[in-house]
Amino acid sequence: MTDLQLMGQQAKDASFQLATLSHQQKNAVLARIAYQLKAHQEEILTANAKDIQQAEQQGLSKALIDRLLLTEQHLDGIIHEVNHIISLADPVGNIIDGAELDSGIKIERKRVPLGVIGVIYEARPNVTVDVACLCLKTGNATILRGGKETQHTNQVLVNIIQQALIDEQLPATAVQAITNPDRQLITQLLKLDQYIDMIIPRGGAGLHQLCKEQSTIPVIVGGIGVCHLFVEESADISKSLTVIHNAKTQRPSTCNTLETLLVQESIAPTFLAELAKYNKTPLITFHADQQALAILRQHTVRVQPLDEATLSKEWLSLDLNVVIVKDMAHAIAHIRHYGSQHSDGILSQNPQLLMQFANQVDSAAVYLNASTRFTDGGEFGLGAEVAVSTQKLHARGPMGLEALTTYKWICSGDYAVRK
Amino acid sequence: MTDLQLMGQQAKDASFQLATLSHQQKNAVLARIAYQLKAHQEEILTANAKDIQQAEQQGLSKALIDRLLLTEQHLDGIIHEVNHIISLADPVGNIIDGAELDSGIKIERKRVPLGVIGVIYEARPNVTVDVACLCLKTGNATILRGGKETQHTNQVLVNIIQQALIDEQLPATAVQAITNPDRQLITQLLKLDQYIDMIIPRGGAGLHQLCKEQSTIPVIVGGIGVCHLFVEESADISKSLTVIHNAKTQRPSTCNTLETLLVQESIAPTFLAELAKYNKTPLITFHADQQALAILRQHTVRVQPLDEATLSKEWLSLDLNVVIVKDMAHAIAHIRHYGSQHSDGILSQNPQLLMQFANQVDSAAVYLNASTRFTDGGEFGLGAEVAVSTQKLHARGPMGLEALTTYKWICSGDYAVRK
Repeated sequence: MTDLQLMGQQAKDASFQLATLSHQQKNAVLARIAYQLKAHQEEILTANAKDIQQAEQQGLSKALIDRLLLTEQHLDGIIHEVNHIISLADPVGNIIDGAELDSGIKIERKRVPLGVIGVIYEARPNVTVDVACLCLKTGNATILRGGKETQHTNQVLVNIIQQALIDEQLPATAVQAITNPDRQLITQLLKLDQYIDMIIPRGGAGLHQLCKEQSTIPVIVGGIGVCHLFVEESADISKSLTVIHNAKTQRPSTCNTLETLLVQESIAPTFLAELAKYNKTPLITFHADQQALAILRQHTVRVQPLDEATLSKEWLSLDLNVVIVKDMAHAIAHIRHYGSQHSDGILSQNPQLLMQFANQVDSAAVYLNASTRFTDGGEFGLGAEVAVSTQKLHARGPMGLEALTTYKWICSGDYAVRK
Repeated sequence: MTDLQLMGQQAKDASFQLATLSHQQKNAVLARIAYQLKAHQEEILTANAKDIQQAEQQGLSKALIDRLLLTEQHLDGIIHEVNHIISLADPVGNIIDGAELDSGIKIERKRVPLGVIGVIYEARPNVTVDVACLCLKTGNATILRGGKETQHTNQVLVNIIQQALIDEQLPATAVQAITNPDRQLITQLLKLDQYIDMIIPRGGAGLHQLCKEQSTIPVIVGGIGVCHLFVEESADISKSLTVIHNAKTQRPSTCNTLETLLVQESIAPTFLAELAKYNKTPLITFHADQQALAILRQHTVRVQPLDEATLSKEWLSLDLNVVIVKDMAHAIAHIRHYGSQHSDGILSQNPQLLMQFANQVDSAAVYLNASTRFTDGGEFGLGAEVAVSTQKLHARGPMGLEALTTYKWICSGDYAVRK
């Protein structure tokens, strides 16, 4: 039986110890994890083969099996990422600000770990190592609940991490995994507010909704990107086509990929003709509103009528909605209505409109003449990415190491009293 | 009928307009509110008299009625606070950081309003004006749900604020109040995640629990302070007594007031004798554990046996738990177990122990030789205080104007694409 109360309690206890570690001590654990992952390569790949075999027996999709699969090359990638995390600056201990107050007390706002972080994710086994290491780097304990499809792989990975913790005289309970696939445990996990400080769900819309509805712990909602680009009438047409193609096709399965292209009415006939002509491998399939459909059909067969329901969903494929709008105000209204406040942009040569768009669009990342594909911790210079937040509290957009910390106020005086 | 969906929608629409206002425009609304509050003084006091009369008829406690009461002097205080908010720096529009990235895009993290803030509070009518003005200052729309005891007063106050908004050509829906006392509406409000970005509950533990359990919107939990001071054996006894007396008696009804005094065993006989002797008006009643009781009884009659249940509750009165602990480790364990992570401190002359205490105690504010009473937005130099957060996400401890904002990433390029 999985005793979540006990896991929570142990994670909290471990977190107090992790919070006092030096940068060096934390990096030493990570280095040991990297080393042990390589040393246990055979064991990991064997466990993964078991997961893959099970997945095939259960008839899971080729795409999903691809995500489960670990090869020696994948594992080297994971180890490389651990070493990269070692190289990053640890924000814990930084003094954010401070002052000597009139009352005579000295006050400092110091960056500290959050405590215990619960992560609920699907499929990909690299997330297990990645999240555990980012949390250890910032002195946080973690409770991981990975997808049941990778339970054998995850079990081995967590064993290796726990052994590395023990080898460094740290509690194994600093990184724990719920391996029991019972979904009821997720709901129970979401109520452990006494022990867990933050929940990060990494999965589809259903998981995020479950967390929002059930969790008594603060949840970082994110990862769902219904992204837009608006082609304003002054835009450079040929350069815009490059950006659109990049935003849609560079890696269609990601959350920062373009879902809907909004085209200003005045340039729609010319622009859409060019768009159809530009469509090159990998080929995009257009889903066009009535007006756009009439134009695109003259230039391509890869177009079909738009279904309004798709406007608020992620494609995760080479499909693209095309909607004609009267002007920027209508484009912004569309983005507010259908978007997920992830990544939305404008293509325009008009500086005033660019500024207005940046001010009025309420998304985590707003793009002015750039591809939405840039929304990423690495691209934004954060060094790493735990998740992409589309909610507004604590962290917004790509979340790096700092998003795994909070602060405390430390006030010292000479037996100071408030007047 | 109260149509919360409509209120939410209108608040969201208003928030888009508020987000684009200049500092000057926002201050102009605040100045008009301050002016109109004075101009409508009679109307406000008459409405308040109605609330007071009703409260008396319903037999509400004297303490509660005191909190409801508005006099001309109180109203002047409220107006003074509005003018103070005008004088504060508005964080919206500040660039937090930025960079020119290798990919050629320019990235800026810009402070923006949160959007729509829901505030659920009890009794005090000053909160209505205070919260509405802090939110307007930071470009946020608000939905206020005040206690039913002040519904007449709140209605008049909100009317005045809405008229000021209209006079400044802004939507009245930027500040809305739920005046229907039906408690079901609170639960409905907590589910409006489509429109509301943050919920601030200002009330007792029951309200906070309700919000944690029911809300699908991020909630700032806070305001409940089970505060501790630990007297370590090296502490200066006479100075410590001053700090303890200040922390307990300066304003006992506040959340940063001391609940429990932890005394190191080695100095307990001497220290508790001094504590009993020092006890001066306003007189503290001690609730002592067995060992402390035996000592205190020799020196004072104002002592009774400790009830363990009170250790995790706010006193909000001149009562004080007294517990003897073996050493600092036991003191910290006590604070972790019974505390609310609000404000906890140590009194000691030992620099190393002071540092260890600061590192190991996981509270929003940690005090080294200072009174817990300092936990306050004004005292911490934040200029204002929306609430005191005891959770760790977004904001911790006293929340000033910045806690009413988030950021967006603005990325601009020359039609930049991701490689």
